[in-house]
Amino acid sequence: MHTQIPGFSLEEYQQRLARVRAAMLTQDIQTLIVHDPANIAWLTGYDGWSFYTPQVAVVTMAGEPLWFGRQMDANGARRTVWLQEENIHWYPDYYVMNPPMNAMEYLANQLLKPRDWAYGRIGLEMDSCYFPPSSWLALCDNLPDAELVDASALVNWCRAVKSDTELRYMRIAARIVERMHAAALEMIEPGLPKHLLVAEIYRVAMEGHDGHFGDYPSMVPMLPSGPDASAPHLTWDERPFCRDQGTFFELAGCHRRYHCILSRTIYLGRPTDNFLRAEEALNAGLEAGLAAAQPGNRCADVANALNAALARHGFDREGARCGYPIGLGYPPDWGEQSMSLRNTDNTLLKPGMTFHFMPGLWLEDWGMETTESIVITENGAEPLCNYPRRLFVKH
Amino acid sequence: MHTQIPGFSLEEYQQRLARVRAAMLTQDIQTLIVHDPANIAWLTGYDGWSFYTPQVAVVTMAGEPLWFGRQMDANGARRTVWLQEENIHWYPDYYVMNPPMNAMEYLANQLLKPRDWAYGRIGLEMDSCYFPPSSWLALCDNLPDAELVDASALVNWCRAVKSDTELRYMRIAARIVERMHAAALEMIEPGLPKHLLVAEIYRVAMEGHDGHFGDYPSMVPMLPSGPDASAPHLTWDERPFCRDQGTFFELAGCHRRYHCILSRTIYLGRPTDNFLRAEEALNAGLEAGLAAAQPGNRCADVANALNAALARHGFDREGARCGYPIGLGYPPDWGEQSMSLRNTDNTLLKPGMTFHFMPGLWLEDWGMETTESIVITENGAEPLCNYPRRLFVKH
Repeated sequence: MHTQIPGFSLEEYQQRLARVRAAMLTQDIQTLIVHDPANIAWLTGYDGWSFYTPQVAVVTMAGEPLWFGRQMDANGARRTVWLQEENIHWYPDYYVMNPPMNAMEYLANQLLKPRDWAYGRIGLEMDSCYFPPSSWLALCDNLPDAELVDASALVNWCRAVKSDTELRYMRIAARIVERMHAAALEMIEPGLPKHLLVAEIYRVAMEGHDGHFGDYPSMVPMLPSGPDASAPHLTWDERPFCRDQGTFFELAGCHRRYHCILSRTIYLGRPTDNFLRAEEALNAGLEAGLAAAQPGNRCADVANALNAALARHGFDREGARCGYPIGLGYPPDWGEQSMSLRNTDNTLLKPGMTFHFMPGLWLEDWGMETTESIVITENGAEPLCNYPRRLFVKH
Repeated sequence: MHTQIPGFSLEEYQQRLARVRAAMLTQDIQTLIVHDPANIAWLTGYDGWSFYTPQVAVVTMAGEPLWFGRQMDANGARRTVWLQEENIHWYPDYYVMNPPMNAMEYLANQLLKPRDWAYGRIGLEMDSCYFPPSSWLALCDNLPDAELVDASALVNWCRAVKSDTELRYMRIAARIVERMHAAALEMIEPGLPKHLLVAEIYRVAMEGHDGHFGDYPSMVPMLPSGPDASAPHLTWDERPFCRDQGTFFELAGCHRRYHCILSRTIYLGRPTDNFLRAEEALNAGLEAGLAAAQPGNRCADVANALNAALARHGFDREGARCGYPIGLGYPPDWGEQSMSLRNTDNTLLKPGMTFHFMPGLWLEDWGMETTESIVITENGAEPLCNYPRRLFVKH
């Protein structure tokens, strides 16, 4: 039934399942219910914009996972997952946005109980978007013989070290985001309404690279200018770019749901001292952080190296984290929600881990971003993009 | 501090607040905590892609709402909300993805308790994406003197009848989605890799209409072909369009977060009998449903009129709902998650309500969509788009 081009070998999916089962054993979890769309995709291959209604993957210690979603999405599962037909299950449409009915009640009674999966320790992603309290209460009410335990980010942590195929997709995403930045730099000028530049960024993002399609990134382009750049997450409207303002572009290329993110700042006119100081500080900070991003070092070492360099240049990010793991993602987040590059995270770096190292500076009435997406290799951090690391100036 | 162009008058925000307070009174709720990004935006004006970390609006019976989010997003709030600075509050960055810390603990202890808002009945959106069980438990643990009650969709229901300004934005979105469909029809041909058409659809979507910017729709283009069109929510890859296949395009134009959605199907070659039968059935069903979409009729009347017409043509949608309210939205959903066009929903239709009336047909190995976004007027249903309602054929 698989009409889409499979993204990964069956062997790779089995290796992922083995990793998840090892983590389940460590936490003494017999049944894992996965709501996070990125985790569902990573385990089953499922890909579709259907996560606005409940859908899960169920993993136990043997056999294939189950895919469970809305009736009309079962055909989408048949076309994208590697599972046998017998492991694709759906709930009727009257469970959709029709309180007090809840699809998790159907899951518990129609799927888990008949399989003897309704007791023991059942792991749930208690910290996940797409798992609202109403669904949790429905599971509690309908699984009275189970111990429901928090398995937040259990699968996310299993995704940290990337396979060769995953890295291949991320390198395609890197080529895409390089082209998006080049297009922005070429087109930007004072007076240009911002949404027309966004139109071109999207066109290039979807055009992809070398015949490989561009997929939708998990976040939209963020490109605030002037005082709006004091905030990291503003999007766009029809106001024009202005002379004597900086704009940072936080953009991601995406291929088969795998992301590569890159931020650069463009100043129209002669940069103020603030921007020149920030350029120097960010470049020193990025170099220091990249040098610390060695296997065996900790996430905290990268953050500390960055922060020390920024402090020498008079900048203080007030404890904001400076990066997060990236890879497979669905909206609203292209981060993997496991570790963080911050001074309290002692996770050891391993070859194959991938991060967006992002020391954005968001000050009172201006801001600047220069970032790198990296893969940890035996020999240290390798930036995925090949794009000049500097403040761009257009007169 | 408002650097963005305000989308609505202060008076309109005050009217919205009054509507929400009336609903709170009915449910005996003293304090309402709002997690849904669309509801936060509707109440406060806040707009940014920051909903991947916790953020809320808090509404009580007097004064302005509070905006509460991540430290780095407070500047984004200052630039988009209508609230006074004293009502913008933030939690430190170490609360972000750093379990067991939870921003809701900070909200309860640092904001609600000092204001005497930590007792009585507190309403929560128990059914909302962006409110995970971990956040609910943090509120339960830290608000021992309050009665936490379900206020799911309380604000969503208040959004149902649109103001003139909201309808103006939706009509701009309608012009945008008409242009997106025209671009798809012009460009599609056998052999064209699908992602190149997506690139053009996005370009047109962002280009907007008549100087009004295109905003990002809450869902991405869905345009499955051939047997993939048996599933409603598949996206795209680099496979080409093929002769003798149908593709449906479910697309939305968006302006200032307000949506207008339209689906049409394009067949490359000579349509099979299935498609011709579906065209006839869907047009009859849409006409019957539109005729029933009168003020004073119920949501169920629209669904029943559609289903009866489809049945006469031999089609059965197996109880799937055939529409939902639309307007302001954030990913993952452009629906408003209050009522549904389905045979069990007895909500009365009122002038100013807006729906995506969407009787998609997803069969075993093919599918077709023809839909309309409508506003209920005193005189019946008015389609927001002016686009031919038929199966398009390209030889």
